[in-house]
Amino acid sequence: MSKLVIVGTVAFDAIETPFGKTDKILGGAATFIGLSAAQFDVDGAIVSVVGGDFPQSYINMLSSKGLNVDGLEIVKEGKTFFWSGKYHNDMNSRDTLVTELNVLADFNPVVPKSYRNSEVVMLGNLHPMVQLGVINQMNDPKLIILDTMNFWMDNTLEELLSVIAKVDVITINDEEARQLTNEYSLVVAAQKIMQMGPEYVVIKKGEHGALLFHENEVFFAPALPLEEVFDPTGAGDTFAGGFAGYLARSGDYSFENMKTAIINGSALASFCVEKFGTERLLTLTDKELHRRLQQFKNLTQFDIELT
Amino acid sequence: MSKLVIVGTVAFDAIETPFGKTDKILGGAATFIGLSAAQFDVDGAIVSVVGGDFPQSYINMLSSKGLNVDGLEIVKEGKTFFWSGKYHNDMNSRDTLVTELNVLADFNPVVPKSYRNSEVVMLGNLHPMVQLGVINQMNDPKLIILDTMNFWMDNTLEELLSVIAKVDVITINDEEARQLTNEYSLVVAAQKIMQMGPEYVVIKKGEHGALLFHENEVFFAPALPLEEVFDPTGAGDTFAGGFAGYLARSGDYSFENMKTAIINGSALASFCVEKFGTERLLTLTDKELHRRLQQFKNLTQFDIELT
Repeated sequence: MSKLVIVGTVAFDAIETPFGKTDKILGGAATFIGLSAAQFDVDGAIVSVVGGDFPQSYINMLSSKGLNVDGLEIVKEGKTFFWSGKYHNDMNSRDTLVTELNVLADFNPVVPKSYRNSEVVMLGNLHPMVQLGVINQMNDPKLIILDTMNFWMDNTLEELLSVIAKVDVITINDEEARQLTNEYSLVVAAQKIMQMGPEYVVIKKGEHGALLFHENEVFFAPALPLEEVFDPTGAGDTFAGGFAGYLARSGDYSFENMKTAIINGSALASFCVEKFGTERLLTLTDKELHRRLQQFKNLTQFDIELT
Repeated sequence: MSKLVIVGTVAFDAIETPFGKTDKILGGAATFIGLSAAQFDVDGAIVSVVGGDFPQSYINMLSSKGLNVDGLEIVKEGKTFFWSGKYHNDMNSRDTLVTELNVLADFNPVVPKSYRNSEVVMLGNLHPMVQLGVINQMNDPKLIILDTMNFWMDNTLEELLSVIAKVDVITINDEEARQLTNEYSLVVAAQKIMQMGPEYVVIKKGEHGALLFHENEVFFAPALPLEEVFDPTGAGDTFAGGFAGYLARSGDYSFENMKTAIINGSALASFCVEKFGTERLLTLTDKELHRRLQQFKNLTQFDIELT
């Protein structure tokens, strides 16, 4: 089993969906990534920052899931990053109501010494300079995975490109892949992104699944068709966390094993959306995950005789 | 091998895409369905109507593919159905420029006597009353497959529902499934459609693949990620034709075999969009199809150890 470093936000979210609304609840990319990766009992460390308003009980909960929190800086006099959003009726689009960076504005990530030789680094969505700061503290990791979003393409493209050049895997959604490359075809977009640095490109299509590209090969992981999506918040981070966690546990970073890692990420994401925030991940059992992986297998496997 | 009856339009199409435009070329639902099903060497009959302006060479070509044309009525003094459309840059939407029903306006389908005991009936997109007319001429077929579209939901909903009640499989796109049921979730929509009659529901999602529902089971067939879609015209019909043709050849109408049939339909559709109209289907070899089926297998198969 390899060690895993996770950088990203640890946050308060207030969420409104057609099914209800929450007060400030636990959220943030690193939180979802960590809880998802923790499903594989990896030795993972969260590198992030919170304010004095962040409950110790949340930190204890992360620790209890086996996540190291030595790199989770607490700025006593500061406030935790806060995001509030409202989903539309189709759950495929949302309005951001509030974004308060707070302690995140001046964040200098510090990777705990004992994790600087981790094999796997998961860079959750954050300012590219913070992501770069983490990369620079690592001792020759075997796999760096980058998640990012259009906000950084719009505002810090040069810095983002310098990070993209240094990573092995990028996860990005379909519209972002098109924006980054000015190509409509996802196949062509993926080829262009591979020329920017990453050997592997994962394009997330939400309810339409995800594509994994590597050289001239491609693998497709469907999303599980669901009767109801209760709250999509954190689904993408949960997907990335499952992907990174599965790979870290196995220590096998081949294309073949990434296929299985993506299916695991998709399965975990399908749980995430069943309840508000991190709620469903916190109660998830191995048995439930295995049952869902079997559903993914039933969903996609077919017999064909090829002559 | 079972016999197959195909009803649908045989038409002239004039197509404009970002890659070019055509004069009046061969098109129509029954044409694409027939050419796609013919890939499986089935004994299929086309039931349709054309005008005196329809070239004998097209009819000869259909015959040469093993398709029976005794049910292809020729109205000497009439004109063939004509459709013209222009695709937008993303190829996912199009404007219809011209629709001339012509001989289709008074079409009374006649299934050739020797095909009334066919096991499989493929009802291509047409007026529901024409589809019903074909069903009523059949002697207890084992599998009736219905393709339809929103136009009939908007204009002849009651007639359409009476046809839906009589079929075993319906193929429909995602937006149409939502319109028919007033449900956003495709899982819930499929359940509602099954309550209307069909035991199997195929929901087509274009570039996002297709879902097959049966009782509480679901199967997902991806679309092949393509560098370029040259002309989407006829892709849905080609999909349906491959599905019907594969099932007719095997004579096995189980859910398991339908999975393989859908993959075959998807593979054939992926060829259809490579050139204008029927052009690519006409030159398609078994070897090319097998190679593409292998690509679908590579695209979706993964290893998972379930404990």
